[in-house]
Amino acid sequence: MSTISPPENPEANPRVKAVFDDIRTTRRSDFINNLWHYLAFDESLLENTWRDVKAVMATPSKLDPMTKELIYAAVSIANSCEYCIHSHTAAARAKGMDDEQYAEFLSIVSLAGRTNQLLNGIKVPIDKEFDHEEKK
Amino acid sequence: MSTISPPENPEANPRVKAVFDDIRTTRRSDFINNLWHYLAFDESLLENTWRDVKAVMATPSKLDPMTKELIYAAVSIANSCEYCIHSHTAAARAKGMDDEQYAEFLSIVSLAGRTNQLLNGIKVPIDKEFDHEEKK
Amino acid sequence: MSTISPPENPEANPRVKAVFDDIRTTRRSDFINNLWHYLAFDESLLENTWRDVKAVMATPSKLDPMTKELIYAAVSIANSCEYCIHSHTAAARAKGMDDEQYAEFLSIVSLAGRTNQLLNGIKVPIDKEFDHEEKK
Amino acid sequence: MSTISPPENPEANPRVKAVFDDIRTTRRSDFINNLWHYLAFDESLLENTWRDVKAVMATPSKLDPMTKELIYAAVSIANSCEYCIHSHTAAARAKGMDDEQYAEFLSIVSLAGRTNQLLNGIKVPIDKEFDHEEKK
Amino acid sequence: MSTISPPENPEANPRVKAVFDDIRTTRRSDFINNLWHYLAFDESLLENTWRDVKAVMATPSKLDPMTKELIYAAVSIANSCEYCIHSHTAAARAKGMDDEQYAEFLSIVSLAGRTNQLLNGIKVPIDKEFDHEEKK
Amino acid sequence: MSTISPPENPEANPRVKAVFDDIRTTRRSDFINNLWHYLAFDESLLENTWRDVKAVMATPSKLDPMTKELIYAAVSIANSCEYCIHSHTAAARAKGMDDEQYAEFLSIVSLAGRTNQLLNGIKVPIDKEFDHEEKK
Repeated sequence: MSTISPPENPEANPRVKAVFDDIRTTRRSDFINNLWHYLAFDESLLENTWRDVKAVMATPSKLDPMTKELIYAAVSIANSCEYCIHSHTAAARAKGMDDEQYAEFLSIVSLAGRTNQLLNGIKVPIDKEFDHEEKK
Repeated sequence: MSTISPPENPEANPRVKAVFDDIRTTRRSDFINNLWHYLAFDESLLENTWRDVKAVMATPSKLDPMTKELIYAAVSIANSCEYCIHSHTAAARAKGMDDEQYAEFLSIVSLAGRTNQLLNGIKVPIDKEFDHEEKK
Repeated sequence: MSTISPPENPEANPRVKAVFDDIRTTRRSDFINNLWHYLAFDESLLENTWRDVKAVMATPSKLDPMTKELIYAAVSIANSCEYCIHSHTAAARAKGMDDEQYAEFLSIVSLAGRTNQLLNGIKVPIDKEFDHEEKK
Repeated sequence: MSTISPPENPEANPRVKAVFDDIRTTRRSDFINNLWHYLAFDESLLENTWRDVKAVMATPSKLDPMTKELIYAAVSIANSCEYCIHSHTAAARAKGMDDEQYAEFLSIVSLAGRTNQLLNGIKVPIDKEFDHEEKK
Repeated sequence: MSTISPPENPEANPRVKAVFDDIRTTRRSDFINNLWHYLAFDESLLENTWRDVKAVMATPSKLDPMTKELIYAAVSIANSCEYCIHSHTAAARAKGMDDEQYAEFLSIVSLAGRTNQLLNGIKVPIDKEFDHEEKK
Repeated sequence: MSTISPPENPEANPRVKAVFDDIRTTRRSDFINNLWHYLAFDESLLENTWRDVKAVMATPSKLDPMTKELIYAAVSIANSCEYCIHSHTAAARAKGMDDEQYAEFLSIVSLAGRTNQLLNGIKVPIDKEFDHEEKK
């Protein structure tokens, strides 16, 4: 169950069609995943969300594509966003992640979950050695 | 303010000393950060936590050391663990992260935070194309 | 799957019936949503939860009813409570929210999710100008 | 302690100066809060963040300015972002929120926190009556 | 820095004084912790919060007092509420928790944090054997 | 939908079989819940997770078994881990929790959720009386 209804014929709307066309061109694929169909209920929300996802995730940069998906998936797991977990785990696989790397990713994410709770429980004072300012 | 008091002379306890020695050897540094001083209030908690941090983070593996720190930091930000954010951001820098990569990391983490809320609000159905099982 | 079984004939219990009657009267509707059916497994939990929901959400006050539902839904999204997201988004619609307002609500909630992660990552010091005390 | 150092003379950089000028014009105030000083370490991150904060929060729309700040603050509380809580509570006050409205806001946010945990604990099935699709 | 200013002479207000008197009587102590001083800015918020804290935490029941504080502290750690972590860890100690029990508590909380992330990452299907309904 | 496929015949792998045998022996039951079937896709992840779950949850200690499950469930609710909520609520029942205790548990968890949001909203300063160090 969703809180909105996706438009039945989204590409009849030229602003939606322009976004969908750009998604297909950028990703070199005809597949438009549900997120974009649902966001099409409001053109501005659709355009703004795609603009930023494209700028951050689909533009070559200093971090490699698989690493970027792993960082995205890590945040999504901690925020418990089911759709995001599935889409970015699938994207990480599409960008080369194998089962061994995925197991290692899960080990890091779950270790972080463990020490996050531990440190939030104890409230250990932060070492001055971690201070970026200090180091310069 | 912390919820426990670290022992004043932790290395008087041989189990604590063994862990501290292993931290120094593994990290090739004399610096023992506060986390370990505080955990020394209970030897088992100290030993178990270090054993797993060492196994996951300090052992060569299929993901490179900087990527591992970024994944760790990403989860810590989403879980709002201040100590963990500082220690793993500092560790990512120590393992080669420059300011441009850090800005990119922050862009991904904040984009994830944005779409996590958006998708959790709308509850978009998950595409069957994301199903790993399906693809095999 | 739920962790409790709702009683089969809840209104046979006079304490449950009294709450259900008050829900119907307060909301001017015969519809009792699942939350109350499930909470009926423990009369005190049912009574206390309804008492506070009624006092906060169903009593005229200085914030208008739609705004109150939007605040409730915003917290529920950030806490990833699926039931609460659906019930309070539906309630906001029932109290007048149209699609354009919902899109704007989603823009604010997702922008907050974005800057929450960004600021939790950077740990920017808080401006003294934000201090309520200071301003008086 | 922050994870980055804000540039000492940010407006020497013309891209940063352009953003700061726009903040001053948009807000009709000379006050530039710390967030923007720190983001100035990376021009793109600064420009993109301000562009969206301006578009969503500083542009007249169908929700009134105070309501928008309350929704923003609600998400920030649930995500435990200390800077965001202070800045958006101060902004809500600047846009007219009085103590009585703030107390009511806190009542709603804390009631939501309460039922979010309760419902996430019990996992009550979602009523079909909440389905937006169904209703049309 | 707080978002409200506590009233300077709270017990001049008879509704506040009545709550403070009940706190002192119930807890058999003259110590009124800051939470109540700050909530005194709004009598209703103060009265309602105390009424429920007293009913749930200060009334003899089927769970022992220390266990109740541990459950409270566990939720507070996961929600990253610093004040709540300190107050309920201190309360657990006051109700008999020793260092060994606290270390065990931290082991459970951090193990939960670990498997919470792991399971939220993998999305393992829920066993029908966990169904309470099924078992009856 | 899960992000991994459990191996079809997991016990053909002797490392997996050793863990499954130890689960059966430790729990005195033939039932192996889905978590372990899915983790079997990576032997190390399976072995490490079981080793710690066994050490913390299945070893007699200073907290009684039901209390340990309640603490685990409380964290899982706050972190919104559906699988964990079901498995540890079922485990608490198996270790003696009755409906009245469960209702009390839910009252504490939801009260904590409520004050967590309230205190995170107000940012009340922490009383020095809560300082463990101070008290010694």
